[in-house]
Amino acid sequence: MNFSLEDAVPVLSRTPLVLRSLLEGLPESWIRGTEGPDTWSPFDIVGHLIHGERTDWMVRTEVLLADGESRPFTPFDRVAMFEASRGKTLHQLLDLFAELRAANLLRLASLNLTTEDLDRRGRHPELGRVTLGELLATWVAHDLSHIAQIARVMGRQYQDAVGPWRAYLPMLGVRGGSES
Amino acid sequence: MNFSLEDAVPVLSRTPLVLRSLLEGLPESWIRGTEGPDTWSPFDIVGHLIHGERTDWMVRTEVLLADGESRPFTPFDRVAMFEASRGKTLHQLLDLFAELRAANLLRLASLNLTTEDLDRRGRHPELGRVTLGELLATWVAHDLSHIAQIARVMGRQYQDAVGPWRAYLPMLGVRGGSES
Repeated sequence: MNFSLEDAVPVLSRTPLVLRSLLEGLPESWIRGTEGPDTWSPFDIVGHLIHGERTDWMVRTEVLLADGESRPFTPFDRVAMFEASRGKTLHQLLDLFAELRAANLLRLASLNLTTEDLDRRGRHPELGRVTLGELLATWVAHDLSHIAQIARVMGRQYQDAVGPWRAYLPMLGVRGGSES
Repeated sequence: MNFSLEDAVPVLSRTPLVLRSLLEGLPESWIRGTEGPDTWSPFDIVGHLIHGERTDWMVRTEVLLADGESRPFTPFDRVAMFEASRGKTLHQLLDLFAELRAANLLRLASLNLTTEDLDRRGRHPELGRVTLGELLATWVAHDLSHIAQIARVMGRQYQDAVGPWRAYLPMLGVRGGSES
Protein backbone atom coordinates (compact mmCIF):
# COMPACT_ATOMS: atom_id res chain seq x y z
CA MET A 1 0.00 0.00 0.00
CA ASN A 2 1.09 3.53 -0.68
CA PHE A 3 0.73 5.87 2.26
CA SER A 4 -2.38 8.03 2.43
CA LEU A 5 -3.86 10.02 5.29
CA GLU A 6 -7.25 8.46 4.49
CA ASP A 7 -5.86 5.00 5.31
CA ALA A 8 -3.54 6.02 8.12
CA VAL A 9 -5.74 8.17 10.36
CA PRO A 10 -8.36 5.44 11.00
CA VAL A 11 -5.62 3.12 12.28
CA LEU A 12 -3.96 5.79 14.42
CA SER A 13 -7.29 6.80 15.92
CA ARG A 14 -8.15 3.21 16.90
CA THR A 15 -4.96 2.40 18.81
CA PRO A 16 -6.08 3.82 22.19
CA LEU A 17 -9.19 1.63 22.17
CA VAL A 18 -7.22 -1.39 20.96
CA LEU A 19 -4.85 -1.04 23.92
CA ARG A 20 -7.72 -0.51 26.32
CA SER A 21 -9.64 -3.53 25.08
CA LEU A 22 -6.52 -5.71 25.22
CA LEU A 23 -5.31 -4.64 28.67
CA GLU A 24 -7.67 -2.66 30.85
CA GLY A 25 -8.72 -4.51 33.99
CA LEU A 26 -6.60 -7.63 33.36
CA PRO A 27 -4.79 -9.37 36.23
CA GLU A 28 -1.37 -7.80 36.92
CA SER A 29 0.44 -10.96 35.80
CA TRP A 30 -0.59 -10.19 32.20
CA ILE A 31 0.22 -6.48 32.47
CA ARG A 32 3.64 -6.84 34.05
CA GLY A 33 4.90 -10.03 32.42
CA THR A 34 7.91 -9.73 30.12
CA GLU A 35 9.78 -12.08 27.78
CA GLY A 36 12.78 -12.22 30.13
CA PRO A 37 15.52 -9.84 31.27
CA ASP A 38 15.76 -6.57 29.32
CA THR A 39 12.45 -7.12 27.54
CA TRP A 40 9.30 -5.06 27.89
CA SER A 41 5.98 -5.75 29.57
CA PRO A 42 2.65 -4.50 28.16
CA PHE A 43 2.86 -1.77 30.84
CA ASP A 44 6.28 -0.71 29.54
CA ILE A 45 5.06 -0.71 25.93
CA VAL A 46 2.13 1.62 26.68
CA GLY A 47 4.61 3.99 28.33
CA HIS A 48 6.84 3.83 25.25
CA LEU A 49 3.88 4.74 23.03
CA ILE A 50 3.12 7.71 25.32
CA HIS A 51 6.68 8.95 24.92
CA GLY A 52 6.27 8.76 21.15
CA GLU A 53 3.18 10.96 21.31
CA ARG A 54 5.06 13.48 23.39
CA THR A 55 8.38 13.69 21.58
CA ASP A 56 8.33 11.90 18.26
CA TRP A 57 5.62 11.86 15.60
CA MET A 58 3.96 15.26 15.60
CA VAL A 59 7.02 17.01 16.97
CA ARG A 60 9.07 15.69 14.04
CA THR A 61 6.28 16.53 11.60
CA GLU A 62 6.38 20.13 12.72
CA VAL A 63 10.19 20.28 12.59
CA LEU A 64 10.15 18.85 9.06
CA LEU A 65 7.53 21.31 7.86
CA ALA A 66 9.29 24.27 9.47
CA ASP A 67 12.94 23.51 8.73
CA GLY A 68 13.07 20.73 6.12
CA GLU A 69 16.41 18.97 5.89
CA SER A 70 18.32 21.75 7.60
CA ARG A 71 17.46 20.63 11.13
CA PRO A 72 17.85 16.96 12.07
CA PHE A 73 15.20 15.46 14.35
CA THR A 74 16.07 15.06 18.02
CA PRO A 75 16.95 11.38 18.67
CA PHE A 76 14.05 9.43 20.20
CA ASP A 77 14.61 7.97 23.67
CA ARG A 78 13.23 4.43 23.38
CA VAL A 79 13.47 3.71 27.12
CA ALA A 80 12.28 6.99 28.64
CA MET A 81 9.16 5.22 29.93
CA PHE A 82 11.04 3.31 32.62
CA GLU A 83 11.36 6.60 34.49
CA ALA A 84 8.23 8.37 33.22
CA SER A 85 5.79 5.53 34.02
CA ARG A 86 7.10 4.94 37.53
CA GLY A 87 4.33 5.00 40.14
CA LYS A 88 1.56 5.21 37.55
CA THR A 89 -1.21 2.66 37.05
CA LEU A 90 -1.99 1.08 33.70
CA HIS A 91 -5.34 2.83 33.79
CA GLN A 92 -3.59 6.20 34.08
CA LEU A 93 -1.25 5.35 31.20
CA LEU A 94 -4.13 4.27 28.95
CA ASP A 95 -5.99 7.50 29.69
CA LEU A 96 -2.90 9.59 29.07
CA PHE A 97 -2.13 7.83 25.79
CA ALA A 98 -5.71 8.35 24.60
CA GLU A 99 -5.58 12.07 25.42
CA LEU A 100 -2.21 12.60 23.75
CA ARG A 101 -3.18 10.65 20.65
CA ALA A 102 -6.44 12.56 20.24
CA ALA A 103 -4.62 15.88 20.60
CA ASN A 104 -1.97 14.81 18.09
CA LEU A 105 -4.59 13.77 15.53
CA LEU A 106 -6.19 17.20 15.91
CA ARG A 107 -2.78 18.80 15.32
CA LEU A 108 -2.32 16.62 12.25
CA ALA A 109 -5.75 17.51 10.86
CA SER A 110 -5.14 21.21 11.45
CA LEU A 111 -2.14 21.08 9.10
CA ASN A 112 -4.44 20.37 6.12
CA LEU A 113 -1.67 18.37 4.47
CA THR A 114 -1.83 17.79 0.73
CA THR A 115 -0.51 14.81 -1.20
CA GLU A 116 2.37 17.01 -2.33
CA ASP A 117 3.26 17.79 1.29
CA LEU A 118 3.89 14.06 1.86
CA ASP A 119 7.00 14.36 -0.35
CA ARG A 120 8.50 17.14 1.75
CA ARG A 121 11.80 16.19 3.29
CA GLY A 122 13.38 16.19 6.69
CA ARG A 123 16.52 14.75 8.22
CA HIS A 124 16.63 11.82 10.62
CA PRO A 125 19.72 11.86 12.87
CA GLU A 126 20.72 8.32 11.81
CA LEU A 127 18.70 7.45 8.71
CA GLY A 128 19.35 10.71 6.87
CA ARG A 129 16.85 12.08 4.38
CA VAL A 130 13.25 11.02 4.96
CA THR A 131 9.90 12.25 3.70
CA LEU A 132 6.86 13.36 5.66
CA GLY A 133 4.90 10.44 4.16
CA GLU A 134 7.54 8.00 5.45
CA LEU A 135 7.40 9.56 8.91
CA LEU A 136 3.62 9.28 9.09
CA ALA A 137 3.61 5.72 7.70
CA THR A 138 6.11 4.83 10.41
CA TRP A 139 3.79 6.22 13.06
CA VAL A 140 1.15 3.72 11.88
CA ALA A 141 3.54 0.77 11.53
CA HIS A 142 5.06 1.54 14.95
CA ASP A 143 1.61 1.34 16.58
CA LEU A 144 0.89 -1.98 14.87
CA SER A 145 4.30 -3.36 15.74
CA HIS A 146 3.75 -2.66 19.43
CA ILE A 147 0.20 -4.05 19.41
CA ALA A 148 1.67 -7.24 17.98
CA GLN A 149 4.41 -7.15 20.62
CA ILE A 150 1.88 -6.83 23.47
CA ALA A 151 -0.08 -9.83 22.19
CA ARG A 152 3.14 -11.82 21.80
CA VAL A 153 4.43 -10.95 25.29
CA MET A 154 1.09 -11.98 26.76
CA GLY A 155 0.99 -15.23 24.78
CA ARG A 156 4.47 -16.15 25.93
CA GLN A 157 3.33 -16.15 29.53
CA TYR A 158 1.62 -19.43 28.57
CA GLN A 159 4.54 -20.98 26.70
CA ASP A 160 4.74 -23.80 29.24
CA ALA A 161 1.04 -23.92 30.10
CA VAL A 162 0.08 -24.94 26.56
CA GLY A 163 2.13 -28.15 26.85
CA PRO A 164 2.62 -29.96 23.51
CA TRP A 165 0.58 -27.35 21.60
CA ARG A 166 3.65 -25.14 21.73
CA ALA A 167 4.76 -26.91 18.55
CA TYR A 168 1.79 -25.30 16.74
CA LEU A 169 2.29 -21.79 18.13
CA PRO A 170 5.55 -20.38 16.72
CA MET A 171 4.88 -17.03 18.42
CA LEU A 172 5.51 -18.67 21.79
CA GLY A 173 9.11 -19.43 20.81
CA VAL A 174 10.88 -22.72 20.27
CA ARG A 175 11.42 -24.68 23.46
CA GLY A 176 14.86 -23.77 24.77
CA GLY A 177 15.35 -21.19 22.02
CA SER A 178 16.29 -17.60 22.62
CA GLU A 179 14.86 -15.86 19.57
CA SER A 180 13.01 -12.61 20.21
CA MET B 1 2.52 -18.33 34.37
CA ASN B 2 0.62 -21.41 35.33
CA PHE B 3 -2.80 -21.72 33.76
CA SER B 4 -5.79 -20.59 35.78
CA LEU B 5 -9.35 -19.86 34.74
CA GLU B 6 -9.15 -16.58 36.70
CA ASP B 7 -6.37 -15.36 34.38
CA ALA B 8 -7.63 -16.96 31.18
CA VAL B 9 -11.27 -15.95 31.04
CA PRO B 10 -10.60 -12.18 31.11
CA VAL B 11 -8.37 -12.55 28.04
CA LEU B 12 -10.81 -14.78 26.18
CA SER B 13 -13.70 -12.45 26.93
CA ARG B 14 -11.82 -9.41 25.57
CA THR B 15 -10.87 -10.82 22.17
CA PRO B 16 -14.12 -9.89 20.37
CA LEU B 17 -13.71 -6.24 21.36
CA VAL B 18 -10.01 -6.28 20.52
CA LEU B 19 -10.81 -7.48 17.00
CA ARG B 20 -13.60 -4.95 16.63
CA SER B 21 -11.45 -2.05 17.80
CA LEU B 22 -8.61 -3.10 15.50
CA LEU B 23 -10.66 -3.70 12.37
CA GLU B 24 -14.25 -2.48 12.33
CA GLY B 25 -14.86 0.26 9.78
CA LEU B 26 -11.32 0.31 8.38
CA PRO B 27 -10.71 0.76 4.64
CA GLU B 28 -10.85 -2.57 2.77
CA SER B 29 -7.16 -2.39 1.90
CA TRP B 30 -6.32 -3.04 5.56
CA ILE B 31 -8.96 -5.77 5.95
CA ARG B 32 -8.09 -7.73 2.83
CA GLY B 33 -4.32 -7.23 2.65
CA THR B 34 -2.15 -10.34 3.08
CA GLU B 35 1.58 -11.02 3.40
CA GLY B 36 1.72 -12.58 -0.07
CA PRO B 37 0.45 -15.75 -1.75
CA ASP B 38 -0.96 -18.39 0.61
CA THR B 39 -0.99 -16.05 3.60
CA TRP B 40 -4.01 -14.76 5.47
CA SER B 41 -5.68 -11.37 5.60
CA PRO B 42 -7.28 -9.97 8.78
CA PHE B 43 -10.63 -11.01 7.24
CA ASP B 44 -9.37 -14.59 6.86
CA ILE B 45 -8.04 -14.64 10.42
CA VAL B 46 -11.37 -13.59 11.93
CA GLY B 47 -13.01 -16.42 9.97
CA HIS B 48 -10.42 -18.86 11.31
CA LEU B 49 -11.19 -17.75 14.87
CA ILE B 50 -14.91 -18.31 14.21
CA HIS B 51 -14.21 -21.86 13.07
CA GLY B 52 -12.30 -22.47 16.30
CA GLU B 53 -15.32 -21.38 18.34
CA ARG B 54 -17.52 -23.73 16.36
CA THR B 55 -15.40 -26.85 16.22
CA ASP B 56 -12.37 -26.68 18.48
CA TRP B 57 -12.11 -25.33 22.02
CA MET B 58 -15.35 -26.06 23.79
CA VAL B 59 -16.14 -29.05 21.59
CA ARG B 60 -12.82 -30.62 22.58
CA THR B 61 -13.35 -29.66 26.21
CA GLU B 62 -16.62 -31.57 26.22
CA VAL B 63 -15.10 -34.59 24.44
CA LEU B 64 -12.25 -34.66 26.95
CA LEU B 65 -14.58 -34.46 29.94
CA ALA B 66 -16.92 -37.10 28.54
CA ASP B 67 -14.50 -39.63 27.08
CA GLY B 68 -11.01 -38.80 28.38
CA GLU B 69 -8.19 -40.36 26.40
CA SER B 70 -10.39 -42.98 24.79
CA ARG B 71 -11.67 -40.71 22.02
CA PRO B 72 -9.21 -38.58 20.06
CA PHE B 73 -10.31 -35.06 19.15
CA THR B 74 -11.51 -34.48 15.59
CA PRO B 75 -8.68 -32.80 13.61
CA PHE B 76 -9.16 -29.02 13.30
CA ASP B 77 -9.59 -27.63 9.79
CA ARG B 78 -7.31 -24.56 9.76
CA VAL B 79 -8.56 -23.29 6.40
CA ALA B 80 -12.30 -23.91 6.64
CA MET B 81 -12.89 -20.16 6.69
CA PHE B 82 -12.05 -19.72 3.02
CA GLU B 83 -15.36 -21.39 2.23
CA ALA B 84 -17.33 -20.41 5.34
CA SER B 85 -16.58 -16.66 5.15
CA ARG B 86 -17.38 -16.34 1.44
CA GLY B 87 -19.89 -13.56 0.74
CA LYS B 88 -19.86 -12.30 4.32
CA THR B 89 -18.81 -8.84 5.44
CA LEU B 90 -16.22 -8.23 8.13
CA HIS B 91 -18.95 -6.69 10.24
CA GLN B 92 -20.95 -9.92 10.04
CA LEU B 93 -17.89 -11.99 10.97
CA LEU B 94 -17.10 -9.79 13.97
CA ASP B 95 -20.69 -10.07 15.20
CA LEU B 96 -20.69 -13.83 14.71
CA PHE B 97 -17.39 -14.28 16.51
CA ALA B 98 -18.63 -12.18 19.46
CA GLU B 99 -21.82 -14.26 19.73
CA LEU B 100 -20.02 -17.59 19.52
CA ARG B 101 -17.34 -16.55 22.01
CA ALA B 102 -19.91 -15.30 24.52
CA ALA B 103 -21.87 -18.55 24.22
CA ASN B 104 -18.71 -20.62 24.64
CA LEU B 105 -17.69 -18.71 27.76
CA LEU B 106 -21.13 -19.43 29.20
CA ARG B 107 -20.66 -23.12 28.39
CA LEU B 108 -17.27 -23.02 30.07
CA ALA B 109 -18.63 -21.31 33.18
CA SER B 110 -21.49 -23.80 33.41
CA LEU B 111 -18.99 -26.66 33.77
CA ASN B 112 -17.87 -25.29 37.17
CA LEU B 113 -14.38 -26.67 36.57
CA THR B 114 -12.12 -27.23 39.56
CA THR B 115 -8.34 -26.98 39.66
CA GLU B 116 -8.26 -30.80 39.71
CA ASP B 117 -10.31 -30.95 36.51
CA LEU B 118 -7.53 -29.06 34.71
CA ASP B 119 -5.36 -32.20 35.01
CA ARG B 120 -7.92 -34.40 33.29
CA ARG B 121 -6.63 -35.92 30.09
CA GLY B 122 -7.72 -36.19 26.52
CA ARG B 123 -6.12 -37.31 23.27
CA HIS B 124 -5.06 -35.02 20.47
CA PRO B 125 -4.95 -36.76 17.06
CA GLU B 126 -1.32 -35.72 16.48
CA LEU B 127 0.06 -34.53 19.79
CA GLY B 128 -1.21 -37.44 21.85
CA ARG B 129 -2.01 -37.04 25.53
CA VAL B 130 -2.96 -33.53 26.59
CA THR B 131 -4.62 -32.05 29.66
CA LEU B 132 -7.69 -29.86 29.90
CA GLY B 133 -5.52 -27.06 31.32
CA GLU B 134 -3.25 -27.27 28.27
CA LEU B 135 -6.24 -27.14 25.93
CA LEU B 136 -7.67 -24.07 27.63
CA ALA B 137 -4.26 -22.32 27.81
CA THR B 138 -3.93 -22.95 24.07
CA TRP B 139 -7.29 -21.29 23.47
CA VAL B 140 -5.87 -18.13 25.09
CA ALA B 141 -2.48 -18.30 23.36
CA HIS B 142 -4.17 -18.98 20.00
CA ASP B 143 -6.25 -15.80 20.37
CA LEU B 144 -3.17 -13.76 21.23
CA SER B 145 -1.16 -15.29 18.41
CA HIS B 146 -3.80 -14.28 15.87
CA ILE B 147 -4.18 -10.77 17.31
CA ALA B 148 -0.43 -10.38 16.87
CA GLN B 149 -0.72 -11.79 13.34
CA ILE B 150 -3.44 -9.29 12.37
CA ALA B 151 -1.32 -6.37 13.60
CA ARG B 152 1.70 -7.75 11.73
CA VAL B 153 -0.20 -8.29 8.47
CA MET B 154 -1.52 -4.74 8.67
CA GLY B 155 1.90 -3.29 9.46
CA ARG B 156 3.43 -5.07 6.50
CA GLN B 157 1.13 -3.22 4.13
CA TYR B 158 3.42 -0.26 4.89
CA GLN B 159 6.73 -2.05 4.52
CA ASP B 160 7.66 0.15 1.57
CA ALA B 161 5.81 3.26 2.70
CA VAL B 162 7.99 3.64 5.81
CA GLY B 163 11.12 4.07 3.65
CA PRO B 164 14.39 3.84 5.61
CA TRP B 165 12.55 3.33 8.94
CA ARG B 166 12.06 -0.28 7.88
CA ALA B 167 15.47 -0.94 9.43
CA TYR B 168 13.96 -0.14 12.85
CA LEU B 169 10.80 -2.21 12.43
CA PRO B 170 11.77 -5.90 12.32
CA MET B 171 8.10 -6.91 12.19
CA LEU B 172 7.89 -5.51 8.67
CA GLY B 173 10.45 -8.05 7.45
CA VAL B 174 13.94 -7.57 6.12
CA ARG B 175 14.03 -6.00 2.67
CA GLY B 176 14.09 -8.83 0.16
CA GLY B 177 13.74 -11.43 2.92
CA SER B 178 11.08 -14.11 2.97
CA GLU B 179 10.73 -14.88 6.66
CA SER B 180 7.21 -15.14 8.02
